[in-house]
Amino acid sequence: MNSEQLFRNILAKKSFLCIGLDTERLKLPKYLQHDKDALFKFNKEIIDNTHDLVIAYKPNIAFYEAEGRIGWEALEKTVEYIRKKSPDILIIADAKRGDIGNTSRMYAKAFFETMDFDAVTVAPYMGEDSIRPFFDFEDKWTIILALTSNKGAEDFQYYYDSFNHQYLFERVLNLTKDWGDIDNTMFVVGATQSQQLVDIRKNIPDHFLLIPGVGAQGGSLNEVAAFGMNNQCGIIVNSSRDIIYADSGRKFGKAARAAAKKLQEEMQILLESYF
Amino acid sequence: MNSEQLFRNILAKKSFLCIGLDTERLKLPKYLQHDKDALFKFNKEIIDNTHDLVIAYKPNIAFYEAEGRIGWEALEKTVEYIRKKSPDILIIADAKRGDIGNTSRMYAKAFFETMDFDAVTVAPYMGEDSIRPFFDFEDKWTIILALTSNKGAEDFQYYYDSFNHQYLFERVLNLTKDWGDIDNTMFVVGATQSQQLVDIRKNIPDHFLLIPGVGAQGGSLNEVAAFGMNNQCGIIVNSSRDIIYADSGRKFGKAARAAAKKLQEEMQILLESYF
Repeated sequence: MNSEQLFRNILAKKSFLCIGLDTERLKLPKYLQHDKDALFKFNKEIIDNTHDLVIAYKPNIAFYEAEGRIGWEALEKTVEYIRKKSPDILIIADAKRGDIGNTSRMYAKAFFETMDFDAVTVAPYMGEDSIRPFFDFEDKWTIILALTSNKGAEDFQYYYDSFNHQYLFERVLNLTKDWGDIDNTMFVVGATQSQQLVDIRKNIPDHFLLIPGVGAQGGSLNEVAAFGMNNQCGIIVNSSRDIIYADSGRKFGKAARAAAKKLQEEMQILLESYF
Repeated sequence: MNSEQLFRNILAKKSFLCIGLDTERLKLPKYLQHDKDALFKFNKEIIDNTHDLVIAYKPNIAFYEAEGRIGWEALEKTVEYIRKKSPDILIIADAKRGDIGNTSRMYAKAFFETMDFDAVTVAPYMGEDSIRPFFDFEDKWTIILALTSNKGAEDFQYYYDSFNHQYLFERVLNLTKDWGDIDNTMFVVGATQSQQLVDIRKNIPDHFLLIPGVGAQGGSLNEVAAFGMNNQCGIIVNSSRDIIYADSGRKFGKAARAAAKKLQEEMQILLESYF
């Protein structure tokens, strides 16, 4: 799926919503917690109730690895189920991987071949040869961490080169944007301030951004749209816990749908005003 | 296992060798390649032939994830087998993880609770709250990427703050060294030049360093010992492919032992000259 197809899906579904599947056994409805297959069953219910409202799902790999081989099985089944249910939905492995070349190649293989993910998030610390192997897989996306929305982002992402007047995360954007192109590269931008988005858009006007932290973590959808959108929409906004844990009882699927629907309707208004 | 116990193991075994288990199906002896349980069977043979020569094993998680649930099962069995075979060997998950707090906590759980790893490598890009959760597990080690030995290390790890005269990897060392202590924190230092090791040791005289890239990748064991050792040895030197793929036939176990023995004997000479 290239950026144009992604844009078409966004217009067709009137949504740029991604739901993060941070599926944690202890947070599931009580009746599911002792079910060996709980993670998949929970995800299936979420997917059944929301697939028409989203353009992407983003399983957070840590939550599956925490369960060992059972979790890995739930992850594989979840990817297969999304693909079957709605082939045009972008499936993102939120994995934040990055290692020397031959190791990154194995991570790429894990997510792009062994499983059928469309995209994987990667951490840039180890540089070019740690990211290049992900680009070798056709029709797949590499989503590079640039600026994250957590407090720790200040520690290193804002490391400042006063000679070139450039933060580390800007250096990451400037250097990595040419390794791939706008059809295989996105950036994680956890922008909580509009000025940041304005500055980042000067650097990378055409790339899609994956934006976490709208909702519970406090970002404003209107601001993100106003300062982050480009002529292909160019933003995918993620929400995880606010949607999947909207209700802790048996009707969690319906509650998740209501929460997702609310966001999708806000997105529809924004899309109709911009396109 | 704290740093003192690790030092005692090093003296007892006359070795500071770690073998990296970068176990890739296509590189295994032909007779194993079509065996579903190939990764574990190969690792078992390596472990049986080398456990008396090493103080650590380091499964490289990417290689197991590339096989999906079968790989994850091989990983779990490998950790259990090492623990049973030789309880005092440090088992390192080379995973290079790092994400927002609640996600890093799940990665820590995956490696420290679900599996019985003693240590995990983490990437610092997302800052303090992405690393802290690993420290919450008692008697476990967090191994922070500082300076890696690949070419891409130049891209960001050498990002320079000319105001404070400090590279990013030095900032990582300076900031993170106080998050834990010398009994739960190590650093990955892929030092290929002795001057780097001298400078790094000024910053962190007492921490253990995990040093990749001796052997095939060209570092000199003598130089690493001369400039990296401290009064508790303070270095763990890793070798992966040179050992585990020393021979591609049925006698790969014996060949691995010979390659490991050669390194261990060099280490013994160094240890006897320093302690």
